[in-house]
Amino acid sequence: MNLSVNDRAILINAIRDIPDFPKPGIIFKDITTLLSDKEAFGVLMTHLHDRYVSYDLTHVAGIDARGFIFGSALAQMLGVGFVPIRKKGKLPYTTVSEKYSLEYGVDEVEIHIDAFSAVEKPRVLLIDDLIATGGTAYAAANLINKVGAECIEACFVMGLDFLSGQSKLRDIVEVYTVIGVD
Amino acid sequence: MNLSVNDRAILINAIRDIPDFPKPGIIFKDITTLLSDKEAFGVLMTHLHDRYVSYDLTHVAGIDARGFIFGSALAQMLGVGFVPIRKKGKLPYTTVSEKYSLEYGVDEVEIHIDAFSAVEKPRVLLIDDLIATGGTAYAAANLINKVGAECIEACFVMGLDFLSGQSKLRDIVEVYTVIGVD
Repeated sequence: MNLSVNDRAILINAIRDIPDFPKPGIIFKDITTLLSDKEAFGVLMTHLHDRYVSYDLTHVAGIDARGFIFGSALAQMLGVGFVPIRKKGKLPYTTVSEKYSLEYGVDEVEIHIDAFSAVEKPRVLLIDDLIATGGTAYAAANLINKVGAECIEACFVMGLDFLSGQSKLRDIVEVYTVIGVD
Repeated sequence: MNLSVNDRAILINAIRDIPDFPKPGIIFKDITTLLSDKEAFGVLMTHLHDRYVSYDLTHVAGIDARGFIFGSALAQMLGVGFVPIRKKGKLPYTTVSEKYSLEYGVDEVEIHIDAFSAVEKPRVLLIDDLIATGGTAYAAANLINKVGAECIEACFVMGLDFLSGQSKLRDIVEVYTVIGVD
């Protein structure tokens, strides 16, 4: 199920462009204006619910920190568990970690080793606000598989279509972006 | 509306104690085990919904990053907007900021200056996972008031009752903790 033309317009209108953040030349897609608008936020979450209600998921996993916002609300609407994937050093119990490359340097994300161990065949949706080069999402999807769960799909509120992140990520998992951004 | 004895037991059983995190001598209250358990997560969020459904809120504001998890799901259940309060440098638009003291040093949280400007009389619930000394929450409640909204109540999944954070915070806002921790 894809987004209707009307709902797409509501969401696009609710997202604010911030030029030169976090550095000159980048136009940052600010989703705080969407979140604070109860109608736009409701349209988005209802769409995500309707898409995933038949996927027989056991968990939604959200990427630190904006992925928590969409992931937790969706998990609650679907009646499934929520699992945070966090930057290194934030999770208190034993973790599995995965490094990924940034423009300059390397970063690392972690998941609790027993994140999904309470269910027999965990079926997980990965979610984040935006996919650009996809490095974090690729590492996160790998982490879900590493701890014995199946990553059914990776979902992003926005996708930067001019970058190759989505096609690389499709090597390891299905990908859905609600709104493509040119 | 307070938590039933049964529901309290479900939540307490779902929270994991992690000794010596993030440093020796501290017992960290790990809520990831509660979040990944769909029943416990559901019990908590239903309780929060039932408590706040009659408060006539316009927004829920969550503190970076675990406050996002509870705040976003609750906002969605109540049909109101969600506003993130973030650590310095994370929000892309013009912000108002507030410093607060840590055990060693100073930290700073921020809110977008127009976070609530789309509604006439914003009535805001502040939420986070835990209140200890309450420095972050005090600064966050001040930020909500600074940008022209009324902070109706501050809500925490857990409160460390042996620290004075809750009583200090009560000088400026109503406080509710779901579970007191000795």
